[in-house]
Amino acid sequence: MKVIIIGASGTIGKAVAEQLQADHEIIRVGKTQGDFQVDITDEASVAALFAQTGKVDAIISTTGGVHYGPLSETTTEQFNSGLQNKLLGQVRLVLLGQKILNPGGSFTLTTGILAQQPIRTGVNATAVNGALEGFVLAAANELSGLRINAVSPTVLTESLGKYGAFFPGFESADAKRVALAYRRSLEGIETGKVYRVW
Amino acid sequence: MKVIIIGASGTIGKAVAEQLQADHEIIRVGKTQGDFQVDITDEASVAALFAQTGKVDAIISTTGGVHYGPLSETTTEQFNSGLQNKLLGQVRLVLLGQKILNPGGSFTLTTGILAQQPIRTGVNATAVNGALEGFVLAAANELSGLRINAVSPTVLTESLGKYGAFFPGFESADAKRVALAYRRSLEGIETGKVYRVW
Repeated sequence: MKVIIIGASGTIGKAVAEQLQADHEIIRVGKTQGDFQVDITDEASVAALFAQTGKVDAIISTTGGVHYGPLSETTTEQFNSGLQNKLLGQVRLVLLGQKILNPGGSFTLTTGILAQQPIRTGVNATAVNGALEGFVLAAANELSGLRINAVSPTVLTESLGKYGAFFPGFESADAKRVALAYRRSLEGIETGKVYRVW
Repeated sequence: MKVIIIGASGTIGKAVAEQLQADHEIIRVGKTQGDFQVDITDEASVAALFAQTGKVDAIISTTGGVHYGPLSETTTEQFNSGLQNKLLGQVRLVLLGQKILNPGGSFTLTTGILAQQPIRTGVNATAVNGALEGFVLAAANELSGLRINAVSPTVLTESLGKYGAFFPGFESADAKRVALAYRRSLEGIETGKVYRVW
């Protein structure tokens, strides 16, 4: 299959590309690296990307930022930044991407453990991930002939040095294990699912 | 208790005010009606509201719009309109409202059955409600000395004439029954809960 990976230079994206590249044609997309560049918060940028790639069989998104900070100090603008990036950015990939997917094609988005398991300073992440899981659940019913799933990783083992203190007592998963869930979404038959790697 | 109801002229808001007014001091807030007016999508408008009301014991929100339409025709801008209104609008009430709640005070937001039970053309609603439920779950851990819950109504019996066709086979609930859940959130001890009326 011809597969676009958006976020291909990130820790998860790299592992997903390695997991899939022997069996699929991978188009690597990043913000500044890869075969093509895209800013998922920019409508014209995403439209331009899909105009360049043309029809594909799958769009995998392993990207999206959220706001971390104490709720007592969070501004509406900061909260909105996560909505515009990880949430609406990935939704935009689906809204525009549904027009370039071949029949039987699939979307795989990225949510995360915080959807159900909050951490300190992570309110925005929990809200954004909750929205993405709702989006996948509902969109699956309307994407006629296409599939959509999400992968929900726990904290990555590779990220423990940087973020481990925010996840006290959480079990981590290495990116290679997380990448398996993207293959399951891509090559499986299910739709509307969230594959939890935790 | 001194209780602000935002959305007080709506079907649910009116029923909540009737449910509570014998036992509490109610400040009715609407977009164009009530004791005060507010636009929840406007930061300055919400700040002005809270400057006028001063300290209160509870903020109840029964308001917020989302976008309905087929996913195949939904634009990113339309999807964002629901994020900015029902989602970020209610989040804004909490981010700004946490500064005017008396100790022991509470927030009660409104989500809805579509969070878990999608309907045709309701992808935006499912995503927005999912985000709100995540927000409540996570924010409850950070709102020191305050509580936050949400009420999730099914379709209102009073709205069946207008929206019934979108909810085939769904059981409805009348607004009076839904209003009980707001009293439970207001006068109860729990936090981080979603009270489903369905």
